[in-house]
Amino acid sequence: MSIDAPIVVEVGLGDRTYDILIGSGLLARAGAEIARRLPGTRAAVVTDANVAAAHLAALQASLETGGIQTAVITLPPGEKTKSFARLEEVVDGVLAAKLERGDIVIAFGGGVIGDLAGFAAGIVRRGMNFVQIPTSLLAQVDSSVGGKTGINSPRGKNLVGVFHQPKLVLADTGVLDTLPIREFRAGYAELAKYGLIDRPEIFAWLEKNWVQVFAGGPERAQAIAEACRAKADVVARDEFETGDRALLNLGHTFGHALEAATQYDGSRLVHGEGVAIGMALAYRFSSRLNLASPDDAARVESHLRAVGLPWRIADIPGELPDAEALLAFIAQDKKVSRGALTFILTRGIGQAFIAKDVPASEVLSFLTENHPDQQKMRPR
Amino acid sequence: MSIDAPIVVEVGLGDRTYDILIGSGLLARAGAEIARRLPGTRAAVVTDANVAAAHLAALQASLETGGIQTAVITLPPGEKTKSFARLEEVVDGVLAAKLERGDIVIAFGGGVIGDLAGFAAGIVRRGMNFVQIPTSLLAQVDSSVGGKTGINSPRGKNLVGVFHQPKLVLADTGVLDTLPIREFRAGYAELAKYGLIDRPEIFAWLEKNWVQVFAGGPERAQAIAEACRAKADVVARDEFETGDRALLNLGHTFGHALEAATQYDGSRLVHGEGVAIGMALAYRFSSRLNLASPDDAARVESHLRAVGLPWRIADIPGELPDAEALLAFIAQDKKVSRGALTFILTRGIGQAFIAKDVPASEVLSFLTENHPDQQKMRPR
Repeated sequence: MSIDAPIVVEVGLGDRTYDILIGSGLLARAGAEIARRLPGTRAAVVTDANVAAAHLAALQASLETGGIQTAVITLPPGEKTKSFARLEEVVDGVLAAKLERGDIVIAFGGGVIGDLAGFAAGIVRRGMNFVQIPTSLLAQVDSSVGGKTGINSPRGKNLVGVFHQPKLVLADTGVLDTLPIREFRAGYAELAKYGLIDRPEIFAWLEKNWVQVFAGGPERAQAIAEACRAKADVVARDEFETGDRALLNLGHTFGHALEAATQYDGSRLVHGEGVAIGMALAYRFSSRLNLASPDDAARVESHLRAVGLPWRIADIPGELPDAEALLAFIAQDKKVSRGALTFILTRGIGQAFIAKDVPASEVLSFLTENHPDQQKMRPR
Repeated sequence: MSIDAPIVVEVGLGDRTYDILIGSGLLARAGAEIARRLPGTRAAVVTDANVAAAHLAALQASLETGGIQTAVITLPPGEKTKSFARLEEVVDGVLAAKLERGDIVIAFGGGVIGDLAGFAAGIVRRGMNFVQIPTSLLAQVDSSVGGKTGINSPRGKNLVGVFHQPKLVLADTGVLDTLPIREFRAGYAELAKYGLIDRPEIFAWLEKNWVQVFAGGPERAQAIAEACRAKADVVARDEFETGDRALLNLGHTFGHALEAATQYDGSRLVHGEGVAIGMALAYRFSSRLNLASPDDAARVESHLRAVGLPWRIADIPGELPDAEALLAFIAQDKKVSRGALTFILTRGIGQAFIAKDVPASEVLSFLTENHPDQQKMRPR
């Protein structure tokens, strides 16, 4: 456990401003940090069975030290947990614990737990206090910043939810050492994303320092803090995603389509991997449209490959639907505004922008060229 | 159908400011009014079977004239519809209609439909446009102003929901002519409430003009507009109920306890009737605590009696639990803050205030004195 002071990133949202603390050993300080900011409160800890097995005892001991009484709601791990039925279960658990508006729902887990518990916190008594203790890299750099919460619908992912900002986020970077490497890598894709959106210096830094980020040195906390800062800046400009915030979807339109095309089968493709391929495709597509240099696309592909992430459609194991079917998944994606195709494209490393009215025909040609079926047919 | 211009009440909430239009014949203008404010949108109309039978054809014709394509989601009438299962049904119906964030959910019905449809509008795609067309007096003066939405939990009423403001409210006062008189009266209790909270002149005006309000003359629209203005003022001061907005709960703490004590059996007590008795009790309790004059309590009781509303616990048909049990229902009510009993009490007509830390023993003595069992035992 580190005795270093954590890095503090402030997310500036007026009267909803909150701190993200980032560092090793934060779990042990959770009780004190929460009690200091929300004195005299009780809490419902929402977690999944995996995280509970590894870390719940440590968190509970820490909360007890802070004098915070807790009820625990443990759910099965996995994306299927983001459902109406589980939402109702969490809501009922929070009400059963007789928590009031000033009490706290603590999300203790990865993105699924954060999204679900945050949604519950946003709707019980029309909004309770919410604290995030993200335990995956993806959740630490992405889902814990910005207040988006939600569940999936049979009609699509994240189609139901609210904006509900946490009062505090505690990102214990030491907890990440227990993550499977594939999950860490998937989170790294979202971390690199911030460099690719509008922080070229972050991307260049990661190209040099990614090994230390994976190894868990102080570079890990530094990288996570930079990503949180980058996201916080975007969110502060556009909390409710009426404009700029859509930039955070870099890689997500292609990525979501690929996730849908693999029936969200995590053994073939997890979200961060879809985003990795999606970002590489967004850069390659931008290059094809003569918006960005092919060198920038190659640089993105090269870094993703270096850290062990998939970067092209062909890296997905198993059969895939054809390009037309992939386009249909894109058109169904929720980031379709009034019928037109909207993509996050780029003019270079760290120069992403929102492109509306992208012609479906261009997307189809690009997907056809980059589809593994097509590539198999090419002369070698 | 009136050709008078509707009364317009603006609810001032910064960038969430919206208009309430109040008048007879508004249903026929709905399409034009909505299309003017939200051009090029599609809509899901959420309604109940009773309202649909009486008025849906008229609304659909009007929306068609305005060029607004609609999907219709019809639910069973009644409080039971405010459930997780029905919420999921509405959310799925809105998504099935492929509506986007800029499209509209229209609540067409009473308070149940408004609360449920508003909640769905608040969570589909993390918030869609929302329009209210309230068809009951209660909904026109209460649920359509202020952005509270929600459903019930087995653990209590309205425990789950969000704040989600409409873009427009259309209160057609002519539609109220098809309401059963008992339901109109119940809504009238909430109307009178605004006078009792902080507008003594409204209460005095109602004492003189209530017959015309019931009959449906221009006084009806005028009274509804005054109530909406009064509520809008309170909501503008405290949108998220961290302070003053609690004043709107005048009569609701006793009222909710009585509703719970009658198992929400509408044949014995509907919500507005509970509020009527609750307001009379709040005035009488304030008088008992030497806060208000007994004359004011008598004046409130006398007006409620005049319009045909119940005003004392003994007016509820059937057996009731004893005073201790009623107190237990009050303590379970969500308006309990950190264990203390909070009541809306008053110093006179239009002088309500929030009283925290009201001793449970005082409430118990008061309930005992005013319980029909006790009164039966008194010498006559």
